[in-house]
Amino acid sequence: MDPTPTAPHVVIVGAGFGGLAAARALASAPVRVTIVDRSNHHLFQPLLYQVAMAALSPAEIAVPIRAVFRDDRNVTVLMGEVVSFDLEARRLALADGAQLAWDYLIVAAGAETNYYGHPEWALYAPGLKSIEDAIEIRRRVLVALERAESADDEARRRQLLTFVVIGGGPTGLELAGAIAELARPIAASDFRRIDPSWIQVVLIEAGQRLLASFDPVLSEKAETSLTEIGVRVRRGARVTNIDARGVWLGDELIPSSSILWTAGVRASGLAARLGVPLDRAGRVVVGPDCALPGHPRVFAIGDIADFETPAGPLPGVSPVAMQQGRHVARLITRERGGEAREPFQYVDKGSMATIGRARAVAQVGKLKMSGLIAWLAWLFVHLWYLIDRRNRLSVFLDWCWSYLTFQRGARLITGREPR
Amino acid sequence: MDPTPTAPHVVIVGAGFGGLAAARALASAPVRVTIVDRSNHHLFQPLLYQVAMAALSPAEIAVPIRAVFRDDRNVTVLMGEVVSFDLEARRLALADGAQLAWDYLIVAAGAETNYYGHPEWALYAPGLKSIEDAIEIRRRVLVALERAESADDEARRRQLLTFVVIGGGPTGLELAGAIAELARPIAASDFRRIDPSWIQVVLIEAGQRLLASFDPVLSEKAETSLTEIGVRVRRGARVTNIDARGVWLGDELIPSSSILWTAGVRASGLAARLGVPLDRAGRVVVGPDCALPGHPRVFAIGDIADFETPAGPLPGVSPVAMQQGRHVARLITRERGGEAREPFQYVDKGSMATIGRARAVAQVGKLKMSGLIAWLAWLFVHLWYLIDRRNRLSVFLDWCWSYLTFQRGARLITGREPR
Repeated sequence: MDPTPTAPHVVIVGAGFGGLAAARALASAPVRVTIVDRSNHHLFQPLLYQVAMAALSPAEIAVPIRAVFRDDRNVTVLMGEVVSFDLEARRLALADGAQLAWDYLIVAAGAETNYYGHPEWALYAPGLKSIEDAIEIRRRVLVALERAESADDEARRRQLLTFVVIGGGPTGLELAGAIAELARPIAASDFRRIDPSWIQVVLIEAGQRLLASFDPVLSEKAETSLTEIGVRVRRGARVTNIDARGVWLGDELIPSSSILWTAGVRASGLAARLGVPLDRAGRVVVGPDCALPGHPRVFAIGDIADFETPAGPLPGVSPVAMQQGRHVARLITRERGGEAREPFQYVDKGSMATIGRARAVAQVGKLKMSGLIAWLAWLFVHLWYLIDRRNRLSVFLDWCWSYLTFQRGARLITGREPR
Repeated sequence: MDPTPTAPHVVIVGAGFGGLAAARALASAPVRVTIVDRSNHHLFQPLLYQVAMAALSPAEIAVPIRAVFRDDRNVTVLMGEVVSFDLEARRLALADGAQLAWDYLIVAAGAETNYYGHPEWALYAPGLKSIEDAIEIRRRVLVALERAESADDEARRRQLLTFVVIGGGPTGLELAGAIAELARPIAASDFRRIDPSWIQVVLIEAGQRLLASFDPVLSEKAETSLTEIGVRVRRGARVTNIDARGVWLGDELIPSSSILWTAGVRASGLAARLGVPLDRAGRVVVGPDCALPGHPRVFAIGDIADFETPAGPLPGVSPVAMQQGRHVARLITRERGGEAREPFQYVDKGSMATIGRARAVAQVGKLKMSGLIAWLAWLFVHLWYLIDRRNRLSVFLDWCWSYLTFQRGARLITGREPR
């Protein structure tokens, strides 16, 4: 549809799961849509850890935003960085000086890694939010193995071969499981001086159980699976410092040169630029229609929004963002037809986490699954939701290859040492 | 074969085509082999321009060196940077302080981009020698299109949409053809404000013809092909300066923000650290057995070596490096059996260059091919020589997809703006 220039203009900030869902739902509506993102691609975040673990290539889990909206003539894609909003004048400014005026604004800028007041830890323990993060983690893990191969000093080698993942949520489990399954077979087949048994993978969780948002039965199954593939799980362990030597739990040091941080996120810094009240995690508090209180034409969705329910705020997961995106798109379309707004209702379709080859946990309503069946469900769902059909085939082939050979297809060290 | 520790130790510096060929040939010989490289992967350079042009992912043209020698127990792979050689004491030093003693040394460190005394041009006109180079070029070309989409100023837009390739050798032709075939279809399908006819691709060659090492008939055919797909060829044009505005040919400025440099290479800086005579291109002059004069157990092969023939030095192409690598490996093996050295004889199997979809030129002895048949030969040869079987399949699928859809599978902007 190529609407008239007088059609209302919907500006969407962010092309993650929420922004993309909103734009796709509006692609057939009588509105003009502009979607702005800092990067040129939509990233399939759930598989980002597989890029970090050398199983997939970046291009397999990312698709150019322009390519998604190729045939939607009412959608304009802009690569740019939003620097300020003027809610009264209904316009925003980009870093290159351009201004965008809106009739409706949907802020879907997502979340960023949260070090809870210790930004200096980022240097030693990168988070996993972008392609760049994933490539940097891949570089660190592969370089640690290379250095261990030529290290003569035993203490140094132990530090190089200890991989610490901080945070016992789904991403932490996926990373810890994948490191164990990447490093040991490759040490055995491709390295000459590393005994696979020297490789330690430690998963640190501050709380009393892993996967706190899952049923406790599945938390236990997940921990059993991790232990079986050789991950040491440390629950109730609070990280007090991270430096060049490793991770400190009070007086105890876990020597490690490869530390990954998945212990928390906070809302994108863009939330603070809206000039409206934020919650403790820096998120924009929204009303039942996902709009900002007092600004009915400004919406916040996904990880940047705090949507309160009787059971607490909705979790920062992709189904919430996608459903909110579609809800707001529908609401805007109907409002143009004079219909009243309906409140957003989240439909929880369940959650899953994978722990290496043929092991996963999943819960859908009261149904709980673990082991091979949960893993097959995980494979199916993740292939299904990959946006690009071409990537679906290529990811599937890569997975078959990795599964059959225990090898990884993207074991590349690229980029340079930071600092 | 797992030879005794007393077997002679062959150290190979560089895992390009030459070093890899030598190590593979020695993998079944009664010697110990150590192959040292700055990176962890062997790179299939002939397809690097396809990574720069978003057609392939880095992992599709690179394979971990360790994976190549997985089953060869007499081969040790070290990732490290050589900083000095001591030819008398027969050992070299790595940047991390380690020392490697050799019985035989094969220096196969390759070549680097040559700006002929203008290193400051590198900032505006990157060369194409590594994965990092290719990703940076991809970033620049895709960012130029993104900026052109939002540019209001006509002169600025013209600068953003003019792509200049400097150097009329095979790499320059491949890049220029690929840019033309990447940018115009994507501008038409995925961008809203760029008229494909605004996109200019200029190929600059200082000499009087393109592909100077080919038969003049093929030079002409190549130029015709380039012109047909919309590349403007400037022959006999000497670049006098490159700056933020574009490329200067004397007083004439070609405004461009995307300039690629393929106009020359020189030997790796490692050549100078050998402390032996070099030629004007910084290469090590070697004898008929590829050994350094006065140092019969030190060899230099491939792009770092100057091997003189009655027709001049051998060209810096991969078949020379591979044949020399195998020659030196055979020579070392035979010498252990008491046989005398034979001189190296280069067998020229021909050369080819591709110019976009279904167009290429090739010459094999007196046979000259162009058009579709040369292109099919090019496809076949390049798939054949890809080391990894898995990559062969994945590259083939990507090529089919690109050919059928005119789309590129790896259109990712990653990394950050330099400076």
